[in-house]
Amino acid sequence: MKRILLFLEFCGTGYHGWQVQKNGIAIQTRVQDAIEACTGRRSALTGCSRTDAGVHARCFCCAFDTASRIPTQRLPAALNAHLPADIAVLHAVQVPSAFHPRYDACGKRYEYRILNTPQRRPLEEGRAWHISAPLDAGRMDALAQALTGTHDFSGFCAAGSSVADKVRTVQQCGVRREGDIILFTVQADGFLYHMVRIMAGTLADIALGRLDPDAVRRALQTGERTQAGRTAPACGLYLDRVFYREEAYAWPIPTNG
Amino acid sequence: MKRILLFLEFCGTGYHGWQVQKNGIAIQTRVQDAIEACTGRRSALTGCSRTDAGVHARCFCCAFDTASRIPTQRLPAALNAHLPADIAVLHAVQVPSAFHPRYDACGKRYEYRILNTPQRRPLEEGRAWHISAPLDAGRMDALAQALTGTHDFSGFCAAGSSVADKVRTVQQCGVRREGDIILFTVQADGFLYHMVRIMAGTLADIALGRLDPDAVRRALQTGERTQAGRTAPACGLYLDRVFYREEAYAWPIPTNG
Repeated sequence: MKRILLFLEFCGTGYHGWQVQKNGIAIQTRVQDAIEACTGRRSALTGCSRTDAGVHARCFCCAFDTASRIPTQRLPAALNAHLPADIAVLHAVQVPSAFHPRYDACGKRYEYRILNTPQRRPLEEGRAWHISAPLDAGRMDALAQALTGTHDFSGFCAAGSSVADKVRTVQQCGVRREGDIILFTVQADGFLYHMVRIMAGTLADIALGRLDPDAVRRALQTGERTQAGRTAPACGLYLDRVFYREEAYAWPIPTNG
Repeated sequence: MKRILLFLEFCGTGYHGWQVQKNGIAIQTRVQDAIEACTGRRSALTGCSRTDAGVHARCFCCAFDTASRIPTQRLPAALNAHLPADIAVLHAVQVPSAFHPRYDACGKRYEYRILNTPQRRPLEEGRAWHISAPLDAGRMDALAQALTGTHDFSGFCAAGSSVADKVRTVQQCGVRREGDIILFTVQADGFLYHMVRIMAGTLADIALGRLDPDAVRRALQTGERTQAGRTAPACGLYLDRVFYREEAYAWPIPTNG
């Protein structure tokens, strides 16, 4: 048996998230189906995190064990032939049998995309949160800096989360404008339930004057969800990268560039 | 009555092109439905060109006459409320009653997107032509330069076109790499049926070694379609801009940037 780490890209629009659900189609199920079609056996498949319905990924990591003789470097093409158009394996590497895609991750980076145009844009449908009123990316970036560092992020966690320890370290975060898109990026050692979406919603609400600029500080200090802003919609969220200590799993996705 | 020029963006994936067809849904029909819902009357709607099934537009121009009292600047939001998610009006301006969105256009710019990655990318599905073998954008750009200028483009026109005069002037064209995307842009005073898709297919075929580098020159000189390369798939093609002589219709789409 060998343990294989897969790097996936997916468009989450048509799915109820990564994890197998009672209702709705999960991305995990589709990848398990493809593995079974290629290897002849159904394998347990462990993801690097859960994702909400409608959330996208440019790099989602998951691992499975297999006795298949398909060379690892041929797995992406073999699996892609059995995956739907909205899911693909970009890369596959063999990892030690103790490797865990979730517990061995030392950080993740998310991107939140806001489409900031007077009218909605069909080519961004399901790919960004549309806000028509002008947003000041520079001001949002200044506000976002208060989120960096080690904090109890209870105020940026959806109610009902069962996680006990809500202290996380945000290594980097910022907001910039790229044409009509406002990009919020945040890298941390771990994320709470809805954390990035509440951060994005809070920064947008302050920029829109729906919330006072002190809300970020208050949500961090009080730990109260009610101090923060809206939960931004899932469609704007992208898991951008998963960081592992091992160099080989850091960012190995092959390109032609 | 006043004549209104609309600037549309659409994702063409779900449509059989702009023009009303016997079979399949046309973008034109959807826009006419929205105009009827807003103004209470069905209007004739004239487009700046036909588009193939699956082709996208960031700026497609069309015009209609209306006696509606809705202020022109409110039309985009009013129409968008009645349009499906994959079509939107970005801007509307009143034009002289003799204005014609097709005959008054002095040029158009198209963009053709090639996704050049070893594996397909779900977030580019239906938005680019996937070619897995590495492409040399610099070499493709050098080849593309032979297309500039005034030529008979019969060799880059699909068989069965009824247009008599196939002389067009390519004002600008070029190929560049942006990350994993190879972008072919071409601006001309007019385009023949499938012209951009045959140009993109020919440049790609030469870059892939499926066609010799002299094919561009031969297709131009002989006017034979068989000298050029493949017709690249519709999903990679974007109508990017329509040029009119009048400054006001040049590029008025409002942004927050």
